[in-house]
Amino acid sequence: MPWATIKMMLVDWLYLAALGIGMALLSMAMDQMIEYMQTFQMLLMTLAGRSGSSGYDYLFTYLSWLGYTELLVICSAMFVHYVAPQAIGSGIPEMKTILRGVILKDYLTFRTLISKVVGLTLSLGSGIPIGKMGPMVHMAAIVANLLSNLAENFEGAYGNESRKAEMLAAGCAVGVACTFSAPVGGVLFSIEVTTMYFSVRNYWRGFFAAACGATVFRILRVIVFKSETTLLAMYQTHFPKDGFEPEELPFFALIGVFAGFLGVLFIAVYRGLVMFLRQNRFAKKFFQKNWIVYPIVVAFIVASITYPRGYGRFLTGRFKFTKTLYDIFSNCTWSKPLYSPESPHGCSSELFGSWMNHEGYGPYNVYIVATLFATTFLFLSALCNTMPIPCGMFMPIFVVGAAYGRLFGEIVSAIFPEGIPGGTDQPIFPGIYAVVGAAALSASITHSVSVAVICCEMTGQYIYIIPLMLAVIIANAVSTYFTPSIYDCIITIKHLPYLPDIPPSNAA
Amino acid sequence: MPWATIKMMLVDWLYLAALGIGMALLSMAMDQMIEYMQTFQMLLMTLAGRSGSSGYDYLFTYLSWLGYTELLVICSAMFVHYVAPQAIGSGIPEMKTILRGVILKDYLTFRTLISKVVGLTLSLGSGIPIGKMGPMVHMAAIVANLLSNLAENFEGAYGNESRKAEMLAAGCAVGVACTFSAPVGGVLFSIEVTTMYFSVRNYWRGFFAAACGATVFRILRVIVFKSETTLLAMYQTHFPKDGFEPEELPFFALIGVFAGFLGVLFIAVYRGLVMFLRQNRFAKKFFQKNWIVYPIVVAFIVASITYPRGYGRFLTGRFKFTKTLYDIFSNCTWSKPLYSPESPHGCSSELFGSWMNHEGYGPYNVYIVATLFATTFLFLSALCNTMPIPCGMFMPIFVVGAAYGRLFGEIVSAIFPEGIPGGTDQPIFPGIYAVVGAAALSASITHSVSVAVICCEMTGQYIYIIPLMLAVIIANAVSTYFTPSIYDCIITIKHLPYLPDIPPSNAA
Repeated sequence: MPWATIKMMLVDWLYLAALGIGMALLSMAMDQMIEYMQTFQMLLMTLAGRSGSSGYDYLFTYLSWLGYTELLVICSAMFVHYVAPQAIGSGIPEMKTILRGVILKDYLTFRTLISKVVGLTLSLGSGIPIGKMGPMVHMAAIVANLLSNLAENFEGAYGNESRKAEMLAAGCAVGVACTFSAPVGGVLFSIEVTTMYFSVRNYWRGFFAAACGATVFRILRVIVFKSETTLLAMYQTHFPKDGFEPEELPFFALIGVFAGFLGVLFIAVYRGLVMFLRQNRFAKKFFQKNWIVYPIVVAFIVASITYPRGYGRFLTGRFKFTKTLYDIFSNCTWSKPLYSPESPHGCSSELFGSWMNHEGYGPYNVYIVATLFATTFLFLSALCNTMPIPCGMFMPIFVVGAAYGRLFGEIVSAIFPEGIPGGTDQPIFPGIYAVVGAAALSASITHSVSVAVICCEMTGQYIYIIPLMLAVIIANAVSTYFTPSIYDCIITIKHLPYLPDIPPSNAA
Repeated sequence: MPWATIKMMLVDWLYLAALGIGMALLSMAMDQMIEYMQTFQMLLMTLAGRSGSSGYDYLFTYLSWLGYTELLVICSAMFVHYVAPQAIGSGIPEMKTILRGVILKDYLTFRTLISKVVGLTLSLGSGIPIGKMGPMVHMAAIVANLLSNLAENFEGAYGNESRKAEMLAAGCAVGVACTFSAPVGGVLFSIEVTTMYFSVRNYWRGFFAAACGATVFRILRVIVFKSETTLLAMYQTHFPKDGFEPEELPFFALIGVFAGFLGVLFIAVYRGLVMFLRQNRFAKKFFQKNWIVYPIVVAFIVASITYPRGYGRFLTGRFKFTKTLYDIFSNCTWSKPLYSPESPHGCSSELFGSWMNHEGYGPYNVYIVATLFATTFLFLSALCNTMPIPCGMFMPIFVVGAAYGRLFGEIVSAIFPEGIPGGTDQPIFPGIYAVVGAAALSASITHSVSVAVICCEMTGQYIYIIPLMLAVIIANAVSTYFTPSIYDCIITIKHLPYLPDIPPSNAA
């Protein structure tokens, strides 16, 4: 091989590594900022609750909770509005369009990157139920594009259009991989969601960049956060290796069916909301004239509903929405007595406390809390995603699916406290149902099967791949039959230019 | 959706499920047969060793060992020769050609299927170091093709050429998935190895069929074999969740480099052997005239080398070649004292016995045994794959890579008995190095990155995905630089028709 080719290969590797590592650093810095901002909100609440009179406490904490959320959401919306409105929303639908060859103006500029990074940090910091994955995909694609442009200046080959598209595809993979520190699932998900036809030759590019990113991400977590766990997965689970019986597979299939219909409902709600805003005469007049009013109204609704001493007391304990996943995936059973040496499968009292006794209220029935939690956030995350701020919906849907799955698993466990009759004596592990539910609902909304792999990587366990695949495929089948995926739905809503799909070959 | 479309979708799903389940049953039946045949060889050896005189024992056991191997290999070669010689070899290179649109005569007929099933069962039953994956891909593709033809009879849509190609691609995925009961890795590996451009729309098809197959496969293992482990992975490992430190990553990278060069060596040896047979005047004259002589000679060489009381005593204990994987992946350290409550990381004496004291000989140094084992089988599997019988090379290479990785890990462990200085106090786990080595060597030979996923699925653990990806990508980079993949190499050797690759875009 001539020297020029070797040099070009090395440069290529270097760029991919830079992309992966750069995005990992960015993701980590943002996570850290968001953590600080949410801790500050907690602090503010504590300070506001010190007046001594319970009436004033109630008022002040509510005002500080509402004010903080409003402030961050408004800041986010204004920053994005004035710096680069291209940063609004998820970004995956736009990337899908761009990867099919359409050029969207100013979508991949440095200005948009800044707008998205700041806007997303602010909006996530406010604690509203939105996700980080879609925006991360957009950001990684921008970084990939900027790197390509940089290379173009001193190397002609990067002027090649197809090379640019390859870099963008790698960027999408890195974006997903960095969000969940899931290199394999990230590559697959980005392929499934953004492209129609895929050149296998480029497979390793996304893989390599994502691996670099994930490695740096995990090593940094060890060094920066001094976490006692070294290279663990983000939501490491601890189920035994034979955590479920073949007899339970029909239950997992049932989760798939439910998740399929729930996904259809979610997409319908989201589309309904957007269409209402666009077509209702009053909404059109009011919100379109004063663009900032809509985020204010939505933030007000969301903050009021989630206010921890109000209805929020039913929305479980952990402060940050996504952190509830630790509780939902926990390896214990509600229906058994509290954890003790005699009851190894019972939940600890802290965990129960965080679900049943919130902010000094309660105890409430844990099944009711879980139902309210899941249902409320299903609608709230659809609502939040209609705001003109950078936001994703994968993570909230994932959490909602996990909560529904957990609920289902707990009911199965309550019905069969000694495990499925006829099998071995081991009890049901509702945590596994939660993982399956999370994957099934996200799969049903995004129309992707690789969520199963993301789930395994996020939890660091591989034992439930078969229930996962079963539920994911069934959920996909149900939702594909009724509705296009959320990304295709947004493409239609936003009137983004796109090529029609090739009709399925069975229509021959 | 009109009723006709729904019906067609249902039929499609049914066919995919039938494909997956059918192949799982076939794979299981073959495994069972092979198991019986290998147990019988063991029995024969025991019977032959009862003469009372050690000299006669030696002779009789050698003759029975040699005779059994020869018999099965000759039967396999003759069956394949007379029934359908298309069944010879792996099948993956041919599938690659077929999926690019070339029609190879009689490659996908029922006759070839029979020839491949019987031939492969016989050749694997003889215990020579060959694999099952390539032939399984070929068989699954045949089953997929037969199902398509069946459907064509009463439904016009299946006459559609593109539909047939989709079924074939799903077949390839199922073949890989059934061999290792690795549904995700199977789909990815088959995509990487057999196709150039991939329609993402068909992704779920392979996924669905593979999931059906894997589910049935695992459930049957529980029911038929009454294995105490329920839905475990094939080579379930038991490493702790934080089994390696970030400081060990350079070692894993080094494994990648070594594996890359070893892969290049393997492909060169294989190509050299085939070219020698074809070009050497004596070999040409002798073997081409009497086609049955070559397998007889090779089986003689292999049986003599692996004869357990001869040189075979250095080739570790477990009778069946692939079963040594259990020992190689085991979670213990040679360099520590034997397992006891005071030495929790030491190996059990049974495990040591099976490596060091074989057939009453020994004890031999375990490092020397591992080196001899890996090196001998590296060459033997190249040799065996030149025989005119159905055979694959993925599994032997995987085992050889695991042995080299283990050896490397043990050396690291011996150098740093208290773990990497500066990290936590936990010791090195050489089993993790074995898993990484296995993935890296197979990746280097097949030029695929999804081996990392297959590895996770085979071992049922996900903790080492980052070292796996690191080593796999480095091994790929090294071997891609020096040589085409083994499949492309066979395509060239066999003069199969193929379309040239599109030149890489950096050659613009």
